[in-house]
Amino acid sequence: MSDSVRPASARREPELASWDEHADVVVVGFGVAGAAAAVAAAVSGADVLVVERTSGWGGAASQAGGFIYLGGGTAIQRACGFTDTPENMHAFLAAAMGTGADQRKLALYAERSVEHFDWLVDCGVPFRKTFYGKPGWEPPGDEGLMYSGGENAHPFDGLVPPAPRGHVPQMTGKRTGERGGGYMLMKPLVETALTAGVRAVYDTRFERLVTANDGRVRGVVATHYGREIAIHAQRSVVLAAGSFAFNPAMVDRHVPALSGRPGAAVEEHDGQAVRAAQALGADVEHLHACEAAVHTDPGLMVRGIVVDARGDRVINEDTYPGRIGEELLARRGSQGFLLVDEQAAEEAEAARDAAALLAPQPSWVSEDIGELEAEAGIPAGALAATLEVYNRHAENGQDPVHRKATRWVRPLRPPYGLYGVRGRTGGFPLGGLRTDVDGGVLDVDGQPIPGLRAAGRTTAGLAAGGYASGISLGDGSFFGRRAGRAAAQT
Amino acid sequence: MSDSVRPASARREPELASWDEHADVVVVGFGVAGAAAAVAAAVSGADVLVVERTSGWGGAASQAGGFIYLGGGTAIQRACGFTDTPENMHAFLAAAMGTGADQRKLALYAERSVEHFDWLVDCGVPFRKTFYGKPGWEPPGDEGLMYSGGENAHPFDGLVPPAPRGHVPQMTGKRTGERGGGYMLMKPLVETALTAGVRAVYDTRFERLVTANDGRVRGVVATHYGREIAIHAQRSVVLAAGSFAFNPAMVDRHVPALSGRPGAAVEEHDGQAVRAAQALGADVEHLHACEAAVHTDPGLMVRGIVVDARGDRVINEDTYPGRIGEELLARRGSQGFLLVDEQAAEEAEAARDAAALLAPQPSWVSEDIGELEAEAGIPAGALAATLEVYNRHAENGQDPVHRKATRWVRPLRPPYGLYGVRGRTGGFPLGGLRTDVDGGVLDVDGQPIPGLRAAGRTTAGLAAGGYASGISLGDGSFFGRRAGRAAAQT
Repeated sequence: MSDSVRPASARREPELASWDEHADVVVVGFGVAGAAAAVAAAVSGADVLVVERTSGWGGAASQAGGFIYLGGGTAIQRACGFTDTPENMHAFLAAAMGTGADQRKLALYAERSVEHFDWLVDCGVPFRKTFYGKPGWEPPGDEGLMYSGGENAHPFDGLVPPAPRGHVPQMTGKRTGERGGGYMLMKPLVETALTAGVRAVYDTRFERLVTANDGRVRGVVATHYGREIAIHAQRSVVLAAGSFAFNPAMVDRHVPALSGRPGAAVEEHDGQAVRAAQALGADVEHLHACEAAVHTDPGLMVRGIVVDARGDRVINEDTYPGRIGEELLARRGSQGFLLVDEQAAEEAEAARDAAALLAPQPSWVSEDIGELEAEAGIPAGALAATLEVYNRHAENGQDPVHRKATRWVRPLRPPYGLYGVRGRTGGFPLGGLRTDVDGGVLDVDGQPIPGLRAAGRTTAGLAAGGYASGISLGDGSFFGRRAGRAAAQT
Repeated sequence: MSDSVRPASARREPELASWDEHADVVVVGFGVAGAAAAVAAAVSGADVLVVERTSGWGGAASQAGGFIYLGGGTAIQRACGFTDTPENMHAFLAAAMGTGADQRKLALYAERSVEHFDWLVDCGVPFRKTFYGKPGWEPPGDEGLMYSGGENAHPFDGLVPPAPRGHVPQMTGKRTGERGGGYMLMKPLVETALTAGVRAVYDTRFERLVTANDGRVRGVVATHYGREIAIHAQRSVVLAAGSFAFNPAMVDRHVPALSGRPGAAVEEHDGQAVRAAQALGADVEHLHACEAAVHTDPGLMVRGIVVDARGDRVINEDTYPGRIGEELLARRGSQGFLLVDEQAAEEAEAARDAAALLAPQPSWVSEDIGELEAEAGIPAGALAATLEVYNRHAENGQDPVHRKATRWVRPLRPPYGLYGVRGRTGGFPLGGLRTDVDGGVLDVDGQPIPGLRAAGRTTAGLAAGGYASGISLGDGSFFGRRAGRAAAQT
């Protein structure tokens, strides 16, 4: 039976034989949102039980690069010489997080971001007060701060004074996708939780919510080595079980841009928690939105031009590379090419850090653009025309078409290298349950469902379409905390 | 209080004082889906009551141009000399209706399309057996058949033998947006319904569903001149109340491309029925999808080139104009321009039907592309480069960039006319409740909610992102019939 039809509708409490476990607050999932919720609930005096599907804590967060989107003047921003304010952070989020983003969440997040940073530090999350300034997906070393959302590129740099807000926990030997910088966010959070008395059960898969006759959520049903167990939440359940990236039916129904593509998430992100809440009448939002990666060296992209299959440029290449991916994936059929010249390749090579990925090799090299067009299947003359317009303005250090910053603009000269970026993108959904700022899961009337809270990518967070690296660990930990605190009180 | 917070959560039957009305089947909405459902339910022997919010039948359908997407070899297709098969129709729908479209619905719809056409004729819907072959949004006269989905343009013409499937009821003096061709679909359907004994109450606004303690839908609560009335459905409720185009909060949450834009629908499309079903745990799908119009003469567009704000072409201009709109709206920031030359303008003028809209006037005219770029704010050289590539291949009657058909491809020569199409697009959402082929409203486990059915734009129908004119009246009437028949039996 596929995950998409694993029953998610609620069980009624009177139908249960008995409860196998009890806690004040039951947190589903021990990733970033679950760990933050567990800490906050325990600190608020609740007896907390975390139900984790895998055999250990961490979730997708442990494998992530570790960006946490924070700002407004954090200690690291200040130490690295950057000025930032909650107002500027809010203005950036309002401009960058997509149409329909929850304005109340954006405002609160910006207003309390410094306090949240300090809380993470208090939990033991280590940050090195150094800035990494090169274009890239993440710092190759243990630098603690980087631009991660295109703040210093068009159109945002013209709207809001730029400040880097991608904060990365310090870690040596990190390997994103296995044990990334996110591991050093998770380890202290989990230790803080366990020290605060949080209990965790592993290898225990959330199946369904349990409701009382009056509709209030009373607990969860889970499976533990094939055996069904019922866990009673005396106060609240907090759903923090990740996205629906690995539920193909939900991806097909809601995020066609990701259909059939590898999810940049963990397999446990099967959407079961989203469906379980929907079954109780929970509302959803921004289900179509997704983050999209493009696996091409940003240091190379910024020095060249990225075009679609028709030879048209797609975006300013100095922006957050996730925006390049989103543009290609969502709007250009996920087919693209990167054109550079020899000087660009050499400069990118010289700027490349030893710890970074191996230098990619171009798919085609030629003195002749027409030859590259023919080899890449770009209509004859189309790439040449794009290059001609680019070079014409680059002579003056300008890019009126996509407004790449002058420092990256220079005419490209033969010989050229062309890289295919076709079909190499993937991502994860950003939408989910609609929640209030305290993690209350809202029904279609905007009323919280009693006894139920949620956080992290089980919910729609800050991003409604646009994205910046660090938003997921950021809003997962921030609203996870708030959900946990509120869960302990109700 | 805005519609978005008008309560939609269910009322419990035991809380009601009494039922004010009774029927076997209660149909919410007297538009195309509701009328088709009412006919089918009544013919199946049920006592049917239609609850309509406005003071008359018709819904958005009466104001629509009237396209009904039908094929597979209808009497009109055959009379006009077109060969079509259910297999070809299915193949086209599978290619054109977007990623994630419900394959079972597409297959059934194609397989039974001829039968559905015959049923409409039996109901008294008049069709003239004439074909209108010019590019356009709809036939200017009373012609009964037209291409309405880009079947005869790239990429579909290379995949499936083209056949026109836009069937339009015959009507004189139609004015789309007030009383369009859809009126002559609705009038016979409603008359058939009333003749079959269907009762209708007008000025009665659906508010909430009523459920029994076991969750089964038992009826609806509506307001009639400010008074709340409870209507008991002894067998089923059929929700056929249109889309959520006029619920701004839902549009912001689900269809950002339409945020803040005029909805191409009627104001009654407030999403209340969608929300009422969601409150019972109904699943939703394709909420992001929308149809998008572009208010520029298709006869002019096909003879020129349509570019975005950066001067890049967006799509083959000979396709269904809704696809041009969708491309501009969803993927190019809704900013575009149409470039034509004098010959194109003259040819379009000569081909323009007397009954068609007035000829639009270009925003700018010049011999010099650079001047047009400056006036339109297109980066210098960008439009010229696009034109150069277009003309280069047009000399050979080819368009390798977007594959417009050879008959429309010709180099454009000065003087030129440039039309702004910026910000002039709007549309309506295509997503909604997830239903089975008999209108059963499915919960997140894929199980029908007892006592509840839905059809029309309250549901996600055939289109999951791509669209063709006639899909809404087509799937609304087709699946409305099926929902009505099934509703009478349960």
